[in-house]
Amino acid sequence: MSLTNGPQAFPRSEYLRRVAAVKSEMARLNVEALFVNNPGNLTYLTGFLGRSSAPQCLVVSMQKEEPTFIVRPMDAAAAIYQSFLDRDSIVIYPENLVGNPDTDVYDAVIDFLHDAGLAKSGVGLEGYQLSARAAEKFMRRLPQARIVDVNRTVTWVRTVKSNLEIAVMKEVAAISDAAIMRAEEVIRPGVREPDVVAELLTTLTRGFNGKAGTSLPHVFLNAGPRSATSHICWTEETIEHGTHVNLELSGFRYAYAAPLSRTFSIGVPSDHLRRAHEAQLAGLEAALNAVRPGATCSDVAGAAYRAIEKRGFNKVSRCGYAVGIDWVEQTASLNELDKTELKPNMTFHLVLSNWMMREGDFGYVLSETIRVTESGVETLSAVPPKLFEI
Amino acid sequence: MSLTNGPQAFPRSEYLRRVAAVKSEMARLNVEALFVNNPGNLTYLTGFLGRSSAPQCLVVSMQKEEPTFIVRPMDAAAAIYQSFLDRDSIVIYPENLVGNPDTDVYDAVIDFLHDAGLAKSGVGLEGYQLSARAAEKFMRRLPQARIVDVNRTVTWVRTVKSNLEIAVMKEVAAISDAAIMRAEEVIRPGVREPDVVAELLTTLTRGFNGKAGTSLPHVFLNAGPRSATSHICWTEETIEHGTHVNLELSGFRYAYAAPLSRTFSIGVPSDHLRRAHEAQLAGLEAALNAVRPGATCSDVAGAAYRAIEKRGFNKVSRCGYAVGIDWVEQTASLNELDKTELKPNMTFHLVLSNWMMREGDFGYVLSETIRVTESGVETLSAVPPKLFEI
Repeated sequence: MSLTNGPQAFPRSEYLRRVAAVKSEMARLNVEALFVNNPGNLTYLTGFLGRSSAPQCLVVSMQKEEPTFIVRPMDAAAAIYQSFLDRDSIVIYPENLVGNPDTDVYDAVIDFLHDAGLAKSGVGLEGYQLSARAAEKFMRRLPQARIVDVNRTVTWVRTVKSNLEIAVMKEVAAISDAAIMRAEEVIRPGVREPDVVAELLTTLTRGFNGKAGTSLPHVFLNAGPRSATSHICWTEETIEHGTHVNLELSGFRYAYAAPLSRTFSIGVPSDHLRRAHEAQLAGLEAALNAVRPGATCSDVAGAAYRAIEKRGFNKVSRCGYAVGIDWVEQTASLNELDKTELKPNMTFHLVLSNWMMREGDFGYVLSETIRVTESGVETLSAVPPKLFEI
Repeated sequence: MSLTNGPQAFPRSEYLRRVAAVKSEMARLNVEALFVNNPGNLTYLTGFLGRSSAPQCLVVSMQKEEPTFIVRPMDAAAAIYQSFLDRDSIVIYPENLVGNPDTDVYDAVIDFLHDAGLAKSGVGLEGYQLSARAAEKFMRRLPQARIVDVNRTVTWVRTVKSNLEIAVMKEVAAISDAAIMRAEEVIRPGVREPDVVAELLTTLTRGFNGKAGTSLPHVFLNAGPRSATSHICWTEETIEHGTHVNLELSGFRYAYAAPLSRTFSIGVPSDHLRRAHEAQLAGLEAALNAVRPGATCSDVAGAAYRAIEKRGFNKVSRCGYAVGIDWVEQTASLNELDKTELKPNMTFHLVLSNWMMREGDFGYVLSETIRVTESGVETLSAVPPKLFEI
C-alpha cells in the first residue's frame, strides 16, 4: 500500500503523551494489555476518525510504544491515512469476520493477544461498549489471562485536555457560535424547521475563519409545543409566531465538539419564558462563579440549583457533563452526587436548559462549553447568554 | 402533562403489527418479557426518534398490548409526543440514575419487572448493546427469572418491511437521489470538500417534493488520494482535477435511510477508473439479476463476485446488508457465507463499492437501496448507475 499518514490534527508527541497517560493507568491496574473499543477513545489514542457499524478495536500493550489498531480491510486505508500509527501497528483482520454469526472481530483481537504473548497476562477490557457475549468470549478464549474490567479508564484520561486539544475546541466553539448567529438570521415565522436546520448544518460544515467542520454536525431544534422535548432532532412543522425555538448544536473538528444552546422567542417573549430565562441565566452565572480547580462537580451543580430555586423554578436534570470527543464524555457529571474534583483544562458542557414537565409542557435551553482555568473558568463561546427575540 | 401524541409516521395499527410480530418470537422463545435497548428497535416498536447518551429502554410484555417505555424525565415529553404509546405505557425513571456510578437505568428496568410480576418469568435480554456489567446486574437482581439472550430478535423482525415502511423508504430514496444530482452541480475542481458536503446536507435536510429529512443526514466524501478510504466523513482538502470523488450518502425520514453511492470523475476518467466502474457495474447487474424470493444472500453475493472477477478485479468486502432504520440492520449480510433466504419486502443496501488495497490505494463506489419484490427486485433510486464525469 502506498498511502501514508495524511495531515494530522495533532503531532505524534501529543498522541504518545495520551498513550503514556493510559499506560500509567494500566500500571496502576496491573494489566499488560488494554483492549479499547469505544470509538471516541480510539480517536483519542490514534487520530482515526472513522465510525462504522463494524467494531473497531485497539490494543495498548506495555511492551510497545504505539497501540495496535486491529482493523477491517476496508477501513485500513483510512487507518493509515488518519492515524499517527506506523504501518506495522495496523493489523488487518479477515473481512469474513464482518456479518458472520460464528466468529467476529473479537476473535481477531484474541488471536492477536495470543500471538503477542499477552494471553497469560493481565488484560483490561473496556466494558463500556462490550456486549456480554463478547466479554464471555474473551473469558473463554483467554483462560490463562487475568481479565480486568476497565470500564471508562481511557475516557477518564480524556477529561483533562492538553492545550492543543483546547485550541481545537476553541475552533469548534467559533463554528458553533457562527451557527447560533446564523439561526438569528433564518428563524422566522412561517419557515419550516428543516429549512432552518439546513442553514445551520451549512454553517457548521463550512466552518468559520477557514476552519471547517470535519464530520457531521449535530442540531436539535425543538419548537412550539415541542419546547418541552429534548434529544429529538426536529420535525416537518413550520415555526409559528408567539412560540419559541430551543436550539442545541455543535460543529465537530477532528471529532471534538463544543456544544451551545440558546432559546429564540418568535415575537415578544411571554412572561413565563422571560422568568424562565432569568432563572436559568442566574443558574448559569452561579455555576460559572463556582467553577475553579479544587471545587467539585457537586459544588457547581448545587450553586446552579440554588440560584434557580431562589427564582421559583426547579430543575430536575443535571447541569452538564464532561465534553470533548463525540460530545458527551461518560465521566464527570455536574450533579450534586458527583464529587469529582475540577482540574485545570477539564472541559464541560454546562447545561442550564430546563424541561419543566409540570408547567404546561414548557422547555427553555441555555448552555455553554467551558474550560476550567488555573484560577476559575473560561467560556469558549462568544455569543451572549441572552434570550434571542426574532 | 398536557402534551399528547403528535403527528405519527405510521398508524397505531402498524406499530401493533410490529409488536405482535415480536410477541410471536417471544412465544417461540418462551419468554414473558423482552428487554429492548437498541435505539433502532425502540423506534421500530414505538415511533420514538430520540437518540441520547443515556440508555433508553423498552419492555415488551406478553401481558400487555403496548410495550412499556422506561424513560429519562427530560425525554418523557418527546416519548409522549413521538411514540404511539398511551400515557400510562411511559414510565419515568429518576433523573439521578443518569451519570451515577452506583445505580443506572437498568435498576429502573429491573424494578419495573419486579413490580409487573415478571421477575420470576422468562426474560429476554437484547444482547446487542448491553454491557457485560449490565447483563450481570440483570442476573443478580432477577435471581428467579430465566434470562434468555435474545440478541437481534427484534432486529430480525425488522428485516421484512410493511408497504407503509417501503413508502417512507421511497420518500427517503428520492431525497438521496436529489443529493447525488446536487453533487453533480457542486463538485468542481478547486472547491473545498466541506463546501460540497454543506450543499449535500442542505439537500438531504430540505428534502424533496415537500418531504423533508427529519433527522441528521449522513455523507461520506472520500476524494483524491483518499479514494481508498471508507467510513471517514471528509477532510478540509480541496477537490483536484484528474482525481475522483467517492460519495456515499443518505437522507433520513422517521429514522429510515435509503443509502446511495456514486463516483464522480473530475475530468476524463483514467483507464483504471473506467475499468473499475465497468467491473462493479457488471457486479451490480449480476446481483440485481440474482435477487428474487427464495434466493439467498449468498446467491446474490456470489453472482456479483463472479461478474467482478470475470473483469479482472477482486472484491474483498461484502456486497451489502439489510437496511432500514438507522441505516445498517445487523442481520442479513450479502456475503457468500450467509444463507438467509430472501423474502418479498426485504430491503438491502446493495454495495458494489470496492476498496482495492493492492492497486495503488484506489477505491470506487457504487451502491443502490433495493427491495425484494414478489418476483424479483426493485431499486428505490432513479439515479442511473453511471460514472459521473465533471
